[in-house]
This record gives sequence, C-alpha cells and structure tokens, in this order.
Amino acid sequence: MLNSCKHLAQKGIEVTYLPVDGRGLVDPGDLRRALRSNTQLVTIMYANNETGVIQPLAEIGKICAEGDVYFHSDAVQAASKIPIRVKDIGCDLLSISGHKFHAPQGVGALYVHKGTNLEPLFYGGSHERSRRAGTENVPGIVGLGKAAELAAKALANSDAHDTVALRDRLENAILGITESAGVNGAGAPRVPNTTNIYFDYIEGEALVIALDLKGLAVSTGAACSSGAIEPSHVLTAMGSRPDRARASIRFSLGKQNTAEDVDFAIQLVPASVERLRELSPLYNKNKPLAFSS
Amino acid sequence: MLNSCKHLAQKGIEVTYLPVDGRGLVDPGDLRRALRSNTQLVTIMYANNETGVIQPLAEIGKICAEGDVYFHSDAVQAASKIPIRVKDIGCDLLSISGHKFHAPQGVGALYVHKGTNLEPLFYGGSHERSRRAGTENVPGIVGLGKAAELAAKALANSDAHDTVALRDRLENAILGITESAGVNGAGAPRVPNTTNIYFDYIEGEALVIALDLKGLAVSTGAACSSGAIEPSHVLTAMGSRPDRARASIRFSLGKQNTAEDVDFAIQLVPASVERLRELSPLYNKNKPLAFSS
Repeated sequence: MLNSCKHLAQKGIEVTYLPVDGRGLVDPGDLRRALRSNTQLVTIMYANNETGVIQPLAEIGKICAEGDVYFHSDAVQAASKIPIRVKDIGCDLLSISGHKFHAPQGVGALYVHKGTNLEPLFYGGSHERSRRAGTENVPGIVGLGKAAELAAKALANSDAHDTVALRDRLENAILGITESAGVNGAGAPRVPNTTNIYFDYIEGEALVIALDLKGLAVSTGAACSSGAIEPSHVLTAMGSRPDRARASIRFSLGKQNTAEDVDFAIQLVPASVERLRELSPLYNKNKPLAFSS
Repeated sequence: MLNSCKHLAQKGIEVTYLPVDGRGLVDPGDLRRALRSNTQLVTIMYANNETGVIQPLAEIGKICAEGDVYFHSDAVQAASKIPIRVKDIGCDLLSISGHKFHAPQGVGALYVHKGTNLEPLFYGGSHERSRRAGTENVPGIVGLGKAAELAAKALANSDAHDTVALRDRLENAILGITESAGVNGAGAPRVPNTTNIYFDYIEGEALVIALDLKGLAVSTGAACSSGAIEPSHVLTAMGSRPDRARASIRFSLGKQNTAEDVDFAIQLVPASVERLRELSPLYNKNKPLAFSS
C-alpha cells in the first residue's frame, strides 16, 4: 500500500499520510482534519501486518461517509482473525488475501459496495463484469471461498479466544523472563495471533536466524520487504528508535500451533536473546562475561 | 487484445490496425509500410483463437528488429499446439496462458527478452522483481511449469501429427457430406487442433445448442465474447459476410479426444446442420419439405 501511494504521488496525485500514535493507532480526529474538498479516497489498513494493531475502522468509516469520500480498507491481516462486517465498517472497498487464512496462494477478494465506480487495472475480455479481464483462477477462487467458510466457522466457535490465550501466554512468559523487551503496539486492540516484541541490544535478523536454526520460524517486519536493510517503517512511524525497530521480532500463531509449540518458544526465545546480547558490544551487562579458562 | 488496443486509443495513444487477407493472414509487407518513426510496439497473435491460423511471426519479428520496435506476440493459442522458439521469432515479449494446455486456470506466463523495459500494471511489494506485486499463485505457477514440460514432451513425440490427422478427418468428412460449408482460414497454416467451419443458412448459436444437447461441445467465436450478438470480428476482418460469420462454428480437439469422438462428430454434425437448414426460411431447398400426413 505504501508503495502504491508512492506511485500515485509520482503520477501527480496528492497523497496525505496520517500519523499513528505510539501504539500504532490512527486518530480519527486526524483523519477528519486531513480531509479536503478534493479528497477522493481514504485507505486505512484494518489490522497492521507487523504488529497486529487494529484500527478504529467504524469511526473512520463514519467520517468518510460524512465527508462523502470513498473508503477502502486493506483487511488482509484481519480476515479470519476477527469478524469483518463491511456494513459496520461502512467501507466502500475492502481487500482480503487468501493465503492469510489457508486458501491457496495467489488469490484474493475485493469487496465492492454497490454503486462504487471502479476503473479496471487492465483490459481485455469482459470477465468479472469487465472489472478484471482474464480467465479466472477457478481453483483459487473455490479455495478462497472454502477457506473463508472454514474461517468464519472457527471464529464463531471462538477459536480466536484460544489463540489469544496462547499468544498472551507466549508474550507474558517471554517478557517475564527477558529484560529490556516489550510489545510493539501494547495497549492497542490487536488481532489474536500476532505479537511483535522488541529485544533491545540485539539485531532482529540475528535472532530470526538463531531461532530458525533451532526450529522456530519468526520474522522481522513483513515478508514483502525481506532483504531490506531499512528499519520497519511501521515501527518507526510509531515512534520507535531505528535500533529498537531493528531489534523487533514478529511472532505469528496459526491454527496448527499448539500449547507445546508455545512452550518450545518460551524455552527458546529468552535464552537465544541472552546469548545474542552476550555477544553484543552495546549490551553493557553488569556481570562480567564468564569465559571458561 | 482488441479491447486493450481500444483502451490505449482512448488514452490518446495512436493505434494502427493491420488488415488480414481472406485466409486470416497478416501481410508482413503491410506491417513494414505501417511502421512509423514513433511506433513503439507491434503486437500480433501467434495463432488465432477462432480459426487457428498461424501468423508469419519470424518475418514479422525481423521487420520489428530492423525497425527497432518492440514486438509482442499473444501465443496463448499456439502454446502446446506448435513448438515456440522465441529466438526464431525474435520477439521481445510473448504471452501464454496455462489453461490452454491443461495447467490450472488463472495462471499465465510472459516471456520477457533481456533488456526489455516493462512498466508494472500495479504496485505494491517487490514480488517478481517489482514487475508484478502480490503474493505469487504458487500452485498455479508449479502447474504451469509441469503442464509446459508435458506439452513439450508431447510435441516432441509428434502427438501433434495425430491431432492433425483427427482434425483433418473431421473436417474432410463434414465438408464431404455438407454442402454450402467451408473452412474459415483454409489455405493458411493452422494449429493442429482447430477447425472453424461455416455452414451457410444456419445460425451458429442454434447449431451449438443442438450439438450440445447431443453431447458435442463446440463454440461460436471466442469464450471471452460469449453472449455477444455481434458477428465474430475475426471472421469479418477476413472478409466474411456477417451472416456467414454467424453461421460459423469452432471445433477444437484436445489430447483426450479419440477417433471415436471424431466419428461421433462426423455422424452428428451434418445431420444437425441438415435439420436446422430445413427450419431455415433462407435455405431454399430444391425438394419440398416432407411433412407426415
């Protein structure tokens, strides 16, 4: 989305970026003040992909409706994690991506409120009512539908509460053991399965590798910017110092994860952080390093 | 492609359309004469989707190279039907679509010659070297690769010759029995699996339905314009009268088709045409209609 906005700006379209607070939340008052007579579209993520922080979409939707401005939300990270009700949000457009909830990769869906005028991105046949030319990805579409059905059932069965419990136990245990660490987005509503934790004095990338070698898959930032050396723009926008942003790790729980997986992570992460910190020149430990003689 | 060109024209880009002869072939001389100093791109189908007619791409590629103009070919209908060698064609860009050769629907490939500068159609992550943002359709991509491998093997095993034999038998038998009928694109090189036959005095759509009811799937024109009431733009561009274009049916053979399928079609099609003509006020039969008393 950030890249898309940059591209719009290059095309001469004025783009206003809203700030977020220290928890990663957009202030609806800021949005109201930012609307101008020529504002065409507001687009705000439902849940952030790095922190899981959930934006106050219903309030935002109301402001957009009052301002008669189209409202799009990227709900890719929210779909299957929390119930999504487009009527409550009041959005005109909402996008989701299948691979985030066990549908095949490479398929997504765009909710379009009746009467919303869309210009296609490309042209050809009149498939999908001339909105998206090209033979449809039928297996993907069917897979997305089935995955959405299963996700809705799981949400209704309160599987989300189980995920919250696992996530909170993981988070609390790690923070209980590890000093100079904390949750990015703490205090904001978050999707049940994500926690983004900073461990000061380490390089997040080094921790990712250390944990991967032991069999635990975590990430720094978003997969779409993997290989990037810049600190996460999400965390820096929240006011995080670059070194803290680089010392942050995202843990995501999926429906296959068990209490044993969480136990494994609780055992592994604080010890790995400790080891990396021992190697860190920045980390002034009080006790001297214990070399074997 | 025609719609894409219309869209370009709407955007103020000058588009020149080349004519085809009665067989559906582009004259490379016409292309050479049509090139201007500001021509950016030439795009010519490899094989036509309605008639199977194969364009002289190598000659066209040579002209484009001499004129220093980008050359794209839509090879969707050619892939798996005839060997495609981009070096022989001399194209900069060539597109294929998976579902035409038993890969999953909704996936295609674009060959891009090294050094060809492409502007993405949409923006976001830096997937596929920033050419196409978005999580890749991995099952589709793997399926396309496997299908291409199998198609190349089949072409090497001269399965295409078997298809030509079946198609020619179908064509010759139908034309041997049915008067006022002929092949659209006759005399031009064609892909092995397609024949497009006109049956004067009937409505193609009526024949499609009659054959469908008996278990034979054929089509008028292209699937992407199904439901259209206009006669095929492909056939009218070849000089076909609108009524003859509307009286045309496309038969496509796939690798699952057998000699028995062809026998079935040979038995069915002339009889169905005959029955429809008996109902046609346009068809002045010499013998009077035989009503049972």
